[in-house]
Amino acid sequence: MKKFILTEDALPRQWYNILPDLPAPLPPYLHPVTHEPLRPDDLAPLLPRTVIEQEFAQDRWIEIPEPVRDIYRMWRPTPLYRADRLEKALGTPAKIYFKYEGVSPAGSHKPNTAVPQVFYNSNEGVRRVTTETGAGQWGSALSFAGSLFGVGVTVYMVKASYHQKPYRRSLMHTWGAEVFASPSERTQAGRDVLAKDPDSPGSLGMAISEAVEDALAHDDTRFALGSAMNHVVLHQTVIGLEAQRQLEMAGDYPDVVIGCVGGGSNFAGLAFPFMADRLSGSRAATRFVAAEPAACPTLTRGVYGYDYPDTAGLGPLLPMRTVGHNFIPAPIHAGGLRFHGDAPTLCALHDKGHVEARAYQQNEVFAEAVRFARHEGFVIAPESAHALRGAVQEALAAKEAGEERTILFGLSGHGNFDLAAFDAYLAGRLEDLPLPQEQLDEALSELPATLRA
Amino acid sequence: MKKFILTEDALPRQWYNILPDLPAPLPPYLHPVTHEPLRPDDLAPLLPRTVIEQEFAQDRWIEIPEPVRDIYRMWRPTPLYRADRLEKALGTPAKIYFKYEGVSPAGSHKPNTAVPQVFYNSNEGVRRVTTETGAGQWGSALSFAGSLFGVGVTVYMVKASYHQKPYRRSLMHTWGAEVFASPSERTQAGRDVLAKDPDSPGSLGMAISEAVEDALAHDDTRFALGSAMNHVVLHQTVIGLEAQRQLEMAGDYPDVVIGCVGGGSNFAGLAFPFMADRLSGSRAATRFVAAEPAACPTLTRGVYGYDYPDTAGLGPLLPMRTVGHNFIPAPIHAGGLRFHGDAPTLCALHDKGHVEARAYQQNEVFAEAVRFARHEGFVIAPESAHALRGAVQEALAAKEAGEERTILFGLSGHGNFDLAAFDAYLAGRLEDLPLPQEQLDEALSELPATLRA
Repeated sequence: MKKFILTEDALPRQWYNILPDLPAPLPPYLHPVTHEPLRPDDLAPLLPRTVIEQEFAQDRWIEIPEPVRDIYRMWRPTPLYRADRLEKALGTPAKIYFKYEGVSPAGSHKPNTAVPQVFYNSNEGVRRVTTETGAGQWGSALSFAGSLFGVGVTVYMVKASYHQKPYRRSLMHTWGAEVFASPSERTQAGRDVLAKDPDSPGSLGMAISEAVEDALAHDDTRFALGSAMNHVVLHQTVIGLEAQRQLEMAGDYPDVVIGCVGGGSNFAGLAFPFMADRLSGSRAATRFVAAEPAACPTLTRGVYGYDYPDTAGLGPLLPMRTVGHNFIPAPIHAGGLRFHGDAPTLCALHDKGHVEARAYQQNEVFAEAVRFARHEGFVIAPESAHALRGAVQEALAAKEAGEERTILFGLSGHGNFDLAAFDAYLAGRLEDLPLPQEQLDEALSELPATLRA
Repeated sequence: MKKFILTEDALPRQWYNILPDLPAPLPPYLHPVTHEPLRPDDLAPLLPRTVIEQEFAQDRWIEIPEPVRDIYRMWRPTPLYRADRLEKALGTPAKIYFKYEGVSPAGSHKPNTAVPQVFYNSNEGVRRVTTETGAGQWGSALSFAGSLFGVGVTVYMVKASYHQKPYRRSLMHTWGAEVFASPSERTQAGRDVLAKDPDSPGSLGMAISEAVEDALAHDDTRFALGSAMNHVVLHQTVIGLEAQRQLEMAGDYPDVVIGCVGGGSNFAGLAFPFMADRLSGSRAATRFVAAEPAACPTLTRGVYGYDYPDTAGLGPLLPMRTVGHNFIPAPIHAGGLRFHGDAPTLCALHDKGHVEARAYQQNEVFAEAVRFARHEGFVIAPESAHALRGAVQEALAAKEAGEERTILFGLSGHGNFDLAAFDAYLAGRLEDLPLPQEQLDEALSELPATLRA
């Protein structure tokens, strides 16, 4: 086991903003109603001013405020490991490195953006932030951040998860957040759904609608998003910036960088600092692999177009690859990867051929997670195991080709709240379902606008 | 938030053995049947040779084998933090440091001894180790270690916990261990109980009997213990040795060292390297506080005598403070602190006045855990929260006295598997029960031998 530890003084002082380095300017966001290019002011009722500025910033480097760095220090810099036991088990000449974000108090990379988002809100006098959460990973990260800055946090948690996954809810309560099963009676959006279907299990899109409505209805309240948008991606680049320094310590540079993709901020956070080297030409041969679930194959089976971030169509139209905001992925255990779209920056790079994508089924992913646990010790989240699956494929391809290859993958979180899923896998109860092509076709036919065929 | 990070080269190369530094030689262990002083050979059917040697070793420093250090590096050196947000919330002039063991793959300090124990077993040709576990913390640490060395692990898990706490069981399965609800049909001890009471919920003592019987019945199998004995305490001293170097970095030395006590290895692991300074006179004023649950008040309400480590009386008689091997503590959420005895070394030091003891009720402990989560971010195990409670008491006493005080406490594990208990606390459902004095008196009257009145 090799571990590369950075001391506190190596904690990055700036985030890396990829916007000025993209091969072409990002297509504009569109207003959800008028379909006109979105003005920053349109976001003011939802997001704090500094976050809106970051969303459109063209500076390559953006300073991390000292109060944010102070909290980052609780768990950052995170360790980079070389998985030499796994390499040996695979009999591969490849070197496999992984960057481990599971050491954060909330157990994943999500606090990297929850902390600055709450900080900026707090700084601008916002008293409360609202958000949606599915399985609870993002909601718990925001609750954690809220408790440290004394900002109230209201989480609308998809009702099915609220009842099935009580422990992330308990975590949010422990950090002092209020958590409501969505759809709830607290918003018009929730009441409308309940009037039609009192037993609605809820959905991420519905929870977003409730959180947005709640934020819009209160002057001292804003909404916080956990992935996809530029400012979220920006904050997550601390991951890749640290990894760069750690690989320097190891005397290495990756041939391939791999991350799992739900909304894309975890992947981008690790990959974009390395992507800068590819785009500048200094490391033009580095490859980037996005690992997504076969049940929600945004990059591998979706289209590049304009779509809403939420099913209710309240958010701005984003230029992104999508399976359609009405597509409902099967309830796979990697709940954090069930978002229908992906970060616009990631999609733009994918569109230009800078990012490859692969889709994996649950059983192959869990098989890797179990092998990893037994050789490298860590029991990891099913989301992260998608990236691991990609890394193992690369390592086996290197073995097949008889060549050295340096692989870096992102291990976004621990699996302590996913053990029921491991149980199901070990008992042979996980099913790999075919993609419902008709449902996908229908969802894609409903896209409000497309960027290209 | 201040964090003190050691790089890999600071990982200790030797464990600290307190036996030669004790104020008086430890009273001998006694054979469970003959009550004669135990010979090392008597332990040979149960423990590997090297572990037996360590149990009685008089060398002050014992080398940590390189393969053990290689695995320690997965999570060690662990971070030392200064809890300055908590200090501020308390308004205390005291400095509060904590050493955080929750970053290990199994989530607690337990792998510090599970790894060397499995290593020595593996080295001596043992193919399988057996153990007991209550809530599953120790069983999962041993499963983790077994998976890395390819040694089979069989865990007898108290039946009530087996059904109530499925996730630590899942963790053990993920690491490839076999886990049986105890009492089971696999051993004579288990069958005897089931014949009398088919619905027996099991007990830790019963599970030990099963694990010991299983080990004795197979030549290639040994038993592994998670606390109390000298070799376990020895292995845990990596905690305190690292903390010493980290406090040097901080330019500090503790006035008081605090740990929670179940069997005592967590407390001793942190405290004994500092205790060496007290015993040598170089830091004679340093105080040591053992925090135990009011429901199992071994140090505060027990007697110093000889007692079995298990209810069935199969293990050697240990010279220790005990509430009696037949005393059944209330089912508090800090399951790891429900052992009836304590480490003989700790008890000897307590008996000579080198260790103070305090007992805490559940509600005060959870109140501190919640305050800690909201100020310091980490959601910690109820066991560890006993030490936190002690630290806060010290910090408030320093405030009252208007004096500076440097406090170090051990944070032995995270609370990710304890969230149902936080739910119960937050809902006001935790009861602080009085100690059943009659039951305690009866248990104490059954002690096989006493050291002093």
